[in-house]
Formats: sequence, structure tokens, C-alpha cells
Amino acid sequence: MIYDLLRDEIKGFKNYEVSNIECKYKMDANEVPFSLPESTLENLQEIVKSANVNRYPDPVSIKLRDKLAEKCSASKDNILVGNGSDEIIHIIMNAFVSPDDFVVYPVPSFSMYRVYSEIAGANKVEVSLGEDYHYDVGEFIKSIKEYDPKLVILCNPNNPTGTTISRDDIIKILEVNRGITVVDEAYYEFFGETVIDLINKYKNMIVLRTLSKAYGLAGLRVGYAVSNPEMIGCLNLVKSPYNVNSISQAIALSVLEADTVKDRVEYIKNERKFLMDGLSKIDGLKVYNSQANFLLLKFDDADYVYNKLLEKGILVRDFSGDNELSGTLRVTIGTREANSYFIKCIKEILS
Amino acid sequence: MIYDLLRDEIKGFKNYEVSNIECKYKMDANEVPFSLPESTLENLQEIVKSANVNRYPDPVSIKLRDKLAEKCSASKDNILVGNGSDEIIHIIMNAFVSPDDFVVYPVPSFSMYRVYSEIAGANKVEVSLGEDYHYDVGEFIKSIKEYDPKLVILCNPNNPTGTTISRDDIIKILEVNRGITVVDEAYYEFFGETVIDLINKYKNMIVLRTLSKAYGLAGLRVGYAVSNPEMIGCLNLVKSPYNVNSISQAIALSVLEADTVKDRVEYIKNERKFLMDGLSKIDGLKVYNSQANFLLLKFDDADYVYNKLLEKGILVRDFSGDNELSGTLRVTIGTREANSYFIKCIKEILS
Repeated sequence: MIYDLLRDEIKGFKNYEVSNIECKYKMDANEVPFSLPESTLENLQEIVKSANVNRYPDPVSIKLRDKLAEKCSASKDNILVGNGSDEIIHIIMNAFVSPDDFVVYPVPSFSMYRVYSEIAGANKVEVSLGEDYHYDVGEFIKSIKEYDPKLVILCNPNNPTGTTISRDDIIKILEVNRGITVVDEAYYEFFGETVIDLINKYKNMIVLRTLSKAYGLAGLRVGYAVSNPEMIGCLNLVKSPYNVNSISQAIALSVLEADTVKDRVEYIKNERKFLMDGLSKIDGLKVYNSQANFLLLKFDDADYVYNKLLEKGILVRDFSGDNELSGTLRVTIGTREANSYFIKCIKEILS
Repeated sequence: MIYDLLRDEIKGFKNYEVSNIECKYKMDANEVPFSLPESTLENLQEIVKSANVNRYPDPVSIKLRDKLAEKCSASKDNILVGNGSDEIIHIIMNAFVSPDDFVVYPVPSFSMYRVYSEIAGANKVEVSLGEDYHYDVGEFIKSIKEYDPKLVILCNPNNPTGTTISRDDIIKILEVNRGITVVDEAYYEFFGETVIDLINKYKNMIVLRTLSKAYGLAGLRVGYAVSNPEMIGCLNLVKSPYNVNSISQAIALSVLEADTVKDRVEYIKNERKFLMDGLSKIDGLKVYNSQANFLLLKFDDADYVYNKLLEKGILVRDFSGDNELSGTLRVTIGTREANSYFIKCIKEILS
């Protein structure tokens, strides 16, 4: 009876699915295996006390925006902070996407693009990636010309494939798209290329970043948008007033000040090479090149491998049931210990 | 140019306005003047460490839901936790309200009802409160019969008036409303009456609660919905996966376990009486009865009083420019020191 009251778009809607399997080696969610920096841990009492949790948070995250702006050579007027970059995608939809507008995004990619498009009641234009999951810019341009979308989303590097789209190809898209172009750079730090420097040239572009990945703050929910001030003003029009809680703001600031991210990213990139090299020597699987903190792997019987890994205490992300990703599993780069154990297990399972 | 791309509903849209004035006595935002319980402060290091912030939060806040359920004599299947109850209002809109559906709510009331209705593109049916801002249930029933709304929102006690709607009147509304009825009990603890016990009888009812007010956790953004399991399932359909960060979940749990809320609520209710009695003896203002942690006050020249209070270091909420609230200011109940000083200042200003 309640179900009948749901919006038509929501009936039969499939939300993002979250695994709640507990495992010794959690290599499923693209998290980094590092705890908070020492300097943050030492000052926790002070950080939490000075956050005055009985008071509402700073609605516009001023101190945090200042620091984020410094990190990406922009000004605080170029930044909007969200409760994870998830929320920012939702804010962008609420600001710009009316029912029946077109939204273009790649598949396979981060599934929240589909989820928020459907909540907005938009028409989804899903552009398939090409061979070995590489971006095919021609397909994007064809779709943009055909549908004149309100929103185009690119994920760079792309999740869950780890493949990238070149700066030149992004510019080709920016040159034809009259709507908003979002470039989701959630995994930027593991890749190193950005288009943030283009935010004033292409005023309809928004770059998304997050502290959930390289910065190791997935639990705090801090994402941010970087764009020109007019765009940030439009997003602020529909942002919920107190979207980022005060402790996340304070801890994020402390972590950015600790400046441990470079060393941590180096560690992960080194481990990515170690894992890639180790897995490439094994027969019976295909390893896709990745510029992020995960690898996509293809097996003849991915289901079997997934379950065997679980038995051995390793949780990976199972995409084998997904049309566009059939036969694949995604493994997040872990510590050396976890990565070595993962290679050993795959050898055993496939032998 | 970017502005032209906004959805028509959002062009000219007026978001919730937040004051950023710093003041010695902050009596504007219905926050309580208490810091975290001692037991929580003592265990902070442990609480934050065990939250494992490099991992994504529990998407369904299981431990917190268990504890909240215990507090309101329900089961965890009756509870959904949000990033503040703001987010839950937005979730309800996303689940049930299509463009051009009707949403009925009181005015004056919490302004986010209007904000989220407009973002949803809904038709707003604003039902004016009656004399001295009392609920007029007849007007609600008339509107419900006329518009057959998808959503009716009641705020009990009502913010910013402090007035209440009786259980019998809520039942009258539930008996005629075929859409969803939301009863926002954000200030419940200062009042003591609830309709949570009716969630299984009226399956289309959702009760909203928050830890931002009596529990003193405004900065953490934790609100919750209480309803029957089918309704909670419908809301979960559109909830963003990781909406409540892990530190807020962990601290909220610790604060609920500390069980200091009763004493704190007693303190505030006692101070409410003190402030009410003190202000009632002063000529030149009207004090409305309130069952919440604030008082609405009416002055001949509210602007003048607001500015004079600011000069004296007191920040209150200025509603004098609001059509439905002209001439009024809202003062949040503070500590005895703040309340005594407030009475003294009002005497001076009006003399």
C-alpha cells in the first residue's frame, strides 16, 4: 500500500548495493589501508572539543575550503564541500536536471551516476566504453550531438575499470557540450592528471574530488566540487544548509595539514605495480591496466574465484553479474602483506 | 550563462539562510548550551579509532538504530538514520513527491519544508496557523480534502512558534490523509507527547526525530525517522548509501548510552519557565507559550530590539521580515547566566 505511493520512477528502482560481509582482507571498496596521521590522532581530543558539536556546523566549511583551495591552486570561491562527492552529484542533479532531461555517462562506471539520474527522473544515455574498457570519445560526442544533454559525467580514472580519458578528449567533449560537464576525479591522486586548470575557460565544467580515497577518510564523508564561482553559486542554491558535520570538517582540515598523502600515494602506486606484476605472471586471468588504487581482473569463472577468495578471507568486489563487466572482479590495492597473500591465493585457486 | 541552465524551479529559488554573526551569547539556532557528556569525552580517542575512518561507514547504522529503537520502544526495522532530519525530509520527497504533486505544511514553520518542496517541483499548500500561532486542524483537513496531497508535514512542537498540535488532531488528519503524513518531533523531548506508538496503525505516517536539539549534537548531523518497516524500506530505496559518517554514528551511540538527556531537558524546561516568567513581567512585548527550547517574542519594533541585543552581545533569530511572523524574534533557552542577561537586556532596551 505504501509502495503504491512511491513515485513511478522509484518503483522497481535498484539502489546502490553495499556488501556487509566481514573479512580479514577487505579489498572490495577502494579504501586505502592507512589509519589517521599521527598528528591528527594526537590532537583528537582538542579537535573534537573545538568542533563544539552542540552547535550547528559551519554551513559553508570555510576553513576546509581554504585549505582545499590551496591544495588545488584555486580560491575558496571555487570550492563546494559535500557529504561525500555522492551528495555533490545529487546537488548537481537537483540544480540542473529536470525530469526528461538527458544525462550522458559511461558504462561500466560508478553506479551512483545511474542512481541519481533515475531519482531525478532523467533520461539516461549510457555510453559504452570501448575495447578493454577504454573511453571512446567519438561515442560521447555522437551522444552529445544527438541528445543535447543537460549533464555529461566522465569518471577519470574510471571506476571500476581504472582506465582514463585524455585531457585532449575531455576538451573535445567540453567544446561540444552545451550542458554541464562533470569530471569525477575521485581517484586523481593515483593518476596525477587533472583538468582543474580549465574551470575558468569552460564555465560549465565541474571537477569532483574526494577525501575518501587517497586521503583515507571514506568514513568521514567529505567530497568537494571545484568550478568557477558562478557555478559554485548555482550549486549552493540547492545545497542543504548543514550538509557537512563539524567533526568531519575539523578532522579533514587536520589531515590535509598533516600532508601525508604523497607518501601514501607513492606506497599505493608501488603496490599497484607489485600486484600487477605478480598477477600478470599467472595463467587464467586478464589484468587491466589501472591508474587508480584498484585493478579489474577477468576470469573464466569469476563467481568461483570470488567464493574461493572469500573462503581464504579476502573480500573483493564482484561485478561478474553485471552485463558490461561480466567475468570480472575488482581488487583494491592493499598493504604489501595483503597483496602478496592475494597473489598467492589467486595462484592456488587457478592452479 | 550557467544560471540559464538551472531548472526552472530553481531559478529565483531562495535557500535556507544561515547567519554567520559571531556573538558572546548565541541564542539564535535552538541549540542547547551543553558540551558532550564526560563519559564520551573521556573515550574520544577510542571512539574515533574504532570508527576506522579509512573505511566506509556502516550504510545502515545498525548499532545506532538498535540504540535509538530501544529509546523509543520500537525495533531497528522501524528506524532510518539520516545526515540530520533535513536529509530525511529530502529522502521522503525523493521517494514520494513527483513534480506537481501537492505538499501541505503549516506556515510559519521550519523553512526546509518549503525548500525541499520547491526542489521537488511540488505544489505547495501552505496552511496558516490560527490565532497566537495555534494549529487549526480544520484548515488542514480542508486542504487535504481539496488537494489530496502526496505529503502532509506537521511540526510538533512547531518551530519557530513553540505551539503544539494535539494527538487527537493528528489522528483526525491521519484519518483523512491518503498520502504520507510526516510528524516532525524535533523538539519532542522538551514537550513529552509523541505519536510514535501509532506507526503501525497508520502505516503512511513517519515520525521525525533528531539528536540536534535535546541531545546536543547539532554539529554531528544525526536525525532519524520512525515508521513501520514497509515505509522504512521505501525510504531506504532512495537513501544515499553512506549518508551518515562513522564518527557521528559512534559518538551518537556513546551519547545515547551516557543517558544525560533527562537531566539536561529538565534544566532547559526549568530555564524556559524562568525566562518566560521574567519576560512576562516586562511591558512592551508579547511572549508566546512554548513547549520547545525557544520562545517566540513579539515587539512593536523587532528590528530595533534585534540590533540592540546584538550590540549587547546577544544573537537571536530575526523573523521580523517574514510575512507570517512580522514583529517577532525567537530566542533559544540558554544557561541561567545567558537567560538572566537576556531579561536584563530586554528590560533596558524597552525602558
